[in-house]
Amino acid sequence: MDTTGCSHHLSYADWSLSETQFDPNQLHSRETVFTIGNGYLGTRGSFEEGYPHALPATFIRGVYDEVPIVYTELANCPDWLSFTITADGERFRLDRGEILSYERQLDLHWGILNRRVRWRSPNGKTLDLDFQRFASLADEHVLGIRCQLTPVDCDSLIEIQASINGYPENQGFDHWEWLDQGKTDRGIWLQVHTRTSRIELGMASGMTVSGAEALLQVTSVPGYPTLTTTFLAAVEKTVTLEKVVTVFTSREVEAPVQAAQVKLAQLPAYSVLLTAHEQAWDEIWQKSDVVVEGDTKAQLAIRYNLFQLLISASRHDKRVSIPAKTLSGFGYRGHIFWDTEIFILPFFTFTQPEIARNLLTYRCHTLNGARRKAAFYGYKGAMFAWESADTGDEVTPRWALPNQPYGEEVRIWCRDREIHISSDIAYAVWYYWQATGDDEWMRDCGAEIILDTAIFWMSRVEWNTQQERYEIREVIGADEYHEQVNNNALTNRMVQWHLEKAIYVFDWLSNRFADRAAELKQKLHLTSERCRRCQDIVTNLWIPYDPTTRLIEQFEGFFNLEDINLDDYEPRTRSMQALLSIDGANKRQVLKQPDVLMLLYLMRGVGEFPYSQEVLLKNWGYYAPRTDITYGSSLGPAIHSILASDLGASAEAYERFMQAALVDLEDVRGNAADGIHGASAGGVWQAVVLGFGGIHLAGDEPVANPHLPSGWMRLHFKLHWHGKWHEFDLRPIS
Amino acid sequence: MDTTGCSHHLSYADWSLSETQFDPNQLHSRETVFTIGNGYLGTRGSFEEGYPHALPATFIRGVYDEVPIVYTELANCPDWLSFTITADGERFRLDRGEILSYERQLDLHWGILNRRVRWRSPNGKTLDLDFQRFASLADEHVLGIRCQLTPVDCDSLIEIQASINGYPENQGFDHWEWLDQGKTDRGIWLQVHTRTSRIELGMASGMTVSGAEALLQVTSVPGYPTLTTTFLAAVEKTVTLEKVVTVFTSREVEAPVQAAQVKLAQLPAYSVLLTAHEQAWDEIWQKSDVVVEGDTKAQLAIRYNLFQLLISASRHDKRVSIPAKTLSGFGYRGHIFWDTEIFILPFFTFTQPEIARNLLTYRCHTLNGARRKAAFYGYKGAMFAWESADTGDEVTPRWALPNQPYGEEVRIWCRDREIHISSDIAYAVWYYWQATGDDEWMRDCGAEIILDTAIFWMSRVEWNTQQERYEIREVIGADEYHEQVNNNALTNRMVQWHLEKAIYVFDWLSNRFADRAAELKQKLHLTSERCRRCQDIVTNLWIPYDPTTRLIEQFEGFFNLEDINLDDYEPRTRSMQALLSIDGANKRQVLKQPDVLMLLYLMRGVGEFPYSQEVLLKNWGYYAPRTDITYGSSLGPAIHSILASDLGASAEAYERFMQAALVDLEDVRGNAADGIHGASAGGVWQAVVLGFGGIHLAGDEPVANPHLPSGWMRLHFKLHWHGKWHEFDLRPIS
Repeated sequence: MDTTGCSHHLSYADWSLSETQFDPNQLHSRETVFTIGNGYLGTRGSFEEGYPHALPATFIRGVYDEVPIVYTELANCPDWLSFTITADGERFRLDRGEILSYERQLDLHWGILNRRVRWRSPNGKTLDLDFQRFASLADEHVLGIRCQLTPVDCDSLIEIQASINGYPENQGFDHWEWLDQGKTDRGIWLQVHTRTSRIELGMASGMTVSGAEALLQVTSVPGYPTLTTTFLAAVEKTVTLEKVVTVFTSREVEAPVQAAQVKLAQLPAYSVLLTAHEQAWDEIWQKSDVVVEGDTKAQLAIRYNLFQLLISASRHDKRVSIPAKTLSGFGYRGHIFWDTEIFILPFFTFTQPEIARNLLTYRCHTLNGARRKAAFYGYKGAMFAWESADTGDEVTPRWALPNQPYGEEVRIWCRDREIHISSDIAYAVWYYWQATGDDEWMRDCGAEIILDTAIFWMSRVEWNTQQERYEIREVIGADEYHEQVNNNALTNRMVQWHLEKAIYVFDWLSNRFADRAAELKQKLHLTSERCRRCQDIVTNLWIPYDPTTRLIEQFEGFFNLEDINLDDYEPRTRSMQALLSIDGANKRQVLKQPDVLMLLYLMRGVGEFPYSQEVLLKNWGYYAPRTDITYGSSLGPAIHSILASDLGASAEAYERFMQAALVDLEDVRGNAADGIHGASAGGVWQAVVLGFGGIHLAGDEPVANPHLPSGWMRLHFKLHWHGKWHEFDLRPIS
Repeated sequence: MDTTGCSHHLSYADWSLSETQFDPNQLHSRETVFTIGNGYLGTRGSFEEGYPHALPATFIRGVYDEVPIVYTELANCPDWLSFTITADGERFRLDRGEILSYERQLDLHWGILNRRVRWRSPNGKTLDLDFQRFASLADEHVLGIRCQLTPVDCDSLIEIQASINGYPENQGFDHWEWLDQGKTDRGIWLQVHTRTSRIELGMASGMTVSGAEALLQVTSVPGYPTLTTTFLAAVEKTVTLEKVVTVFTSREVEAPVQAAQVKLAQLPAYSVLLTAHEQAWDEIWQKSDVVVEGDTKAQLAIRYNLFQLLISASRHDKRVSIPAKTLSGFGYRGHIFWDTEIFILPFFTFTQPEIARNLLTYRCHTLNGARRKAAFYGYKGAMFAWESADTGDEVTPRWALPNQPYGEEVRIWCRDREIHISSDIAYAVWYYWQATGDDEWMRDCGAEIILDTAIFWMSRVEWNTQQERYEIREVIGADEYHEQVNNNALTNRMVQWHLEKAIYVFDWLSNRFADRAAELKQKLHLTSERCRRCQDIVTNLWIPYDPTTRLIEQFEGFFNLEDINLDDYEPRTRSMQALLSIDGANKRQVLKQPDVLMLLYLMRGVGEFPYSQEVLLKNWGYYAPRTDITYGSSLGPAIHSILASDLGASAEAYERFMQAALVDLEDVRGNAADGIHGASAGGVWQAVVLGFGGIHLAGDEPVANPHLPSGWMRLHFKLHWHGKWHEFDLRPIS
């Protein structure tokens, strides 16, 4: 394997990400980067032994609990990592003593995190420590840690504490109430539940020691059950400790702590667990891998982003989706945005369609929440939440509150106005259906989503009597720098498209599944009058597009705003909104992220108006230079990369692609600490497959029209389309 | 000692409060009731062994840390109580097994909390447990727990874990970050600091065992250092465990954890500590006790309220004050209101003047915060915060936020409008000065408070050109049911009084301490033009008083509001605001608490207009029936009691007095769980001394004009006035 470059103490091989030096300034961002998981839970890459100000976290899908201001958040779960080592009375910790050598390595192929440290204690004794951890993909309720310990200079009296830490925190807040704890023949267990949502969690843990005479003891400090062992480790002789943990919640089983105990009692050896885990990963990659030759950094970065998506997507639960920051950080509190449907979903739709179906079924389960939101705002049908959690009710915070006694609160308007999400979800449903031909799911779930959101739109549009057209007023488009606009082109066109498809889907359903059509007709009041008006809206909804110039106006009046040249603000390290103020950005022609270009990208996917080379060229020329692609939204770069590929702007496409691909690995935006940029990771797959691979999906067969970046000798991937696997092995035109 | 009545499983003796049955439904309110403390810290009466959903808390004065919405709060400190007992493998907990007998008893004279339990384990083994705890009044950094344990049926293998629990929480939020922990010859220690305010705390603990062969071990689970001991306890033989804890913060010493270790190493035996503690309490009561004969329940309740005040007032720190819920609960987040100056302070001014001085000096230390608040609102001088914490900046939350996604937020206006507090503080300064003749403190602190708040008022009043009078518009008076009123009588008259005294104080200062007067003149810009205008405001500030009817109108237009009869709403268990809605109460003649009557009470204290028997009689007749005295503010009953005494309405006076005196003991308002009602406790002393004792303080000697409740055979108390102690031994006129 060749290894290229080494920036930020990271080195890249095809399948392996290595950190060769520990830098406390990157503590939190690297905790994010070294997240592992298995779709049931995600665990940040925090150290087993702890570190001052660390942000360890384990998030289990769907385990939400109430919290002020943002209503609900994913609760950080009891910490299964806790593992402290005391050698001759000195506790191993990286902020004391001396780190003689260090390597942390994430193996993406097998889903294993390793860390090797040679540490000299403050008293001058040297220890070799080799940590390994994994969250089993073969059995998602099983977790493992192995620690191999070798005294370097002399025999050492070692004390190990392997705990379940029942005091996890969400940036200070502890969602758990202690219920009980105890010990069994095999180890220790803890039973807790969340404060408000009353989700019960049971965790059990056992440990084995080999290479030394050691006896396990149980210490039962409240909330912190601990396995303790003390032994003499001989110089240059390795002692191996294997800690296994089982975890269940009341979302899956009735009696989680019993389930955890039973599972623990039945577990085979650590090595057996590891083998099963590796086999499961191997199967996953058979379908989802993307091979790049000629660019090791890109190769690793692609696999890294796919790995992070794969560990955050549920394979066994249809009532959850992927949060914006996956299961890897506290950012956005585990809330779910359009990020999932528009940015992340295609990767799953085309390589793991069962997972894509689970993710979309979450929206079906949360339709009642969307209906409550619509009713609250005085509309009909289902109006999806901009930020969604367990119930689908709107959980976008209303306010950004000041910390200072005399600071001003800022109203956040997305819950009220960023309503394009309802069509984004309909779009994803349609796309999934087109790709998979999964008619049963469309009958049971997809149709209801598309139809009831269409009903919402029919109550949301307004008829402009003067202009004799339908309009959608007071919205936020994809570009969040403009917070109150009328007739956003993206929103209006997506709604038009959505209503058109709603008519199609209802016709299809009536023909194919008349019973279900009748059921929905009654449930959603799909009268023929409504159907006629739906068609009327499709025909008369205004899209601010000028066919002579081929320019789409982002929203009514955008072209009249003060124009600025972003180059005048370079070099900068902050967003344009931070530089201009919220109000200042609102009043200028500057975009946080693609909006008209986003619309073009979305219509490219379904091959519809206004996507065409001419329109793209014209609007790219206008909007790309006005978009804050560096410090605006992380959702932008991958989309720009795809469109640049379409335009043959290969260097630009590659630059934007790498900006997206390295957003967490190299902390490009300085906020990797908050968690993985899930949408960006999904965008990376799209930029590679749809952009560089140039895949178009118009007919029965996906067609490649590759634009490989310079230096790429090969691009290989698979797509699942219409029930068949399609393999692409692209090489540069020589 | 005679014991009367037993309600809510509480029984009352002269000095001893007993709970004779454990009721889990009263868990939280009784945690409040059995709070102990020493002015440095307060510790709620939670059980050493824990209980599901318990709210244990230790608050140390001045240890504030940031928190969303309410800006800052007293941080719950590491729990020094943690003490678990496992007998033959079964953990002692009151929610398991059977409670064969139970008594919790708070000895008010000696400041000691005892609990005796006979417990039968789920496996049928019986144990006698006798717990004792105290927070030393002799050395406020020392805490002690004693546990005496006796197996009843057979020998028992006992395991004890005596910990410092480093995971305390403020209703879910943990303010502490772990720094270090370890062991010494004498025990264990923990070092933590607050997340934002970076206050460091060090705690150390040791334990001795007598009556059994036992060896102490240290378990060092992260954040939870623990002393463990295992021993065989012989049947009917008592084993005694004595756990001592020392605690310091960086507010008192540079190196708190070292200070805690050194203190621990030097501690004498538990019994010696206890004796010193008892002596300190004896001295306190020499001055502050109130003796009642003929009414044991009232006697106990009075001492209980005084005890709760005495343990929450700092004797060694001038930068802190007493929070509304003292150091006993999470209510109001440890914020400081007018409750301290108006309701609590008189007890200290007249029985512990050094403490009163400390409390007022806090306002001097927070003058800069009050100046920042004034500047923020566009005024001059110092505008005290309605809710104050460490800096004096305004920390009243702006919003009551909904938990539900579609709930509405409610704006809280007190920070903006409840501005009478600036005069309340000036009033307390004046009162303290009158009582003590402490000219030095007046020179150094008091004068600046009175003068700079006067400057605030001069910028706050408005000249009404039409009416040719000064007015104060858009305020909230004492009665918080009316949230936006003009010319509130209490506010206007207090301001008038305040400005009058400001002129007096500046004259006095100029005559007595010319240098200081010159210094303040320059610092506060006390120009002669300003002094003239101050006099003009005193003369022309409008007080809505009708000399013909002798009725004071609560505010401009109050008499025009819809009138209601509170009897029509009886029986009720909620406040009138809850029944009528915020808006509904605003529009009606219904009061949350005395406002005009509060003004009369305040002017009674200084013997000034409009207080007179005629005005009182007239306004009592109007306002008392319109006041929600049962479920409005807990600040009301004691004030009504005093005024009822003045009017010779003895039965009413006693009823209101008991309502205040039992507010926590019998959880009269259902919110004792949130913490002690500090203002009510202070009001109880005033109701007894000023109301029943009828003390007037006009001249050089306090004069009693007693109105003893029926059945009271004796009322005895002391007052410190003008440098001398005055003893009152009042008996009914036979």
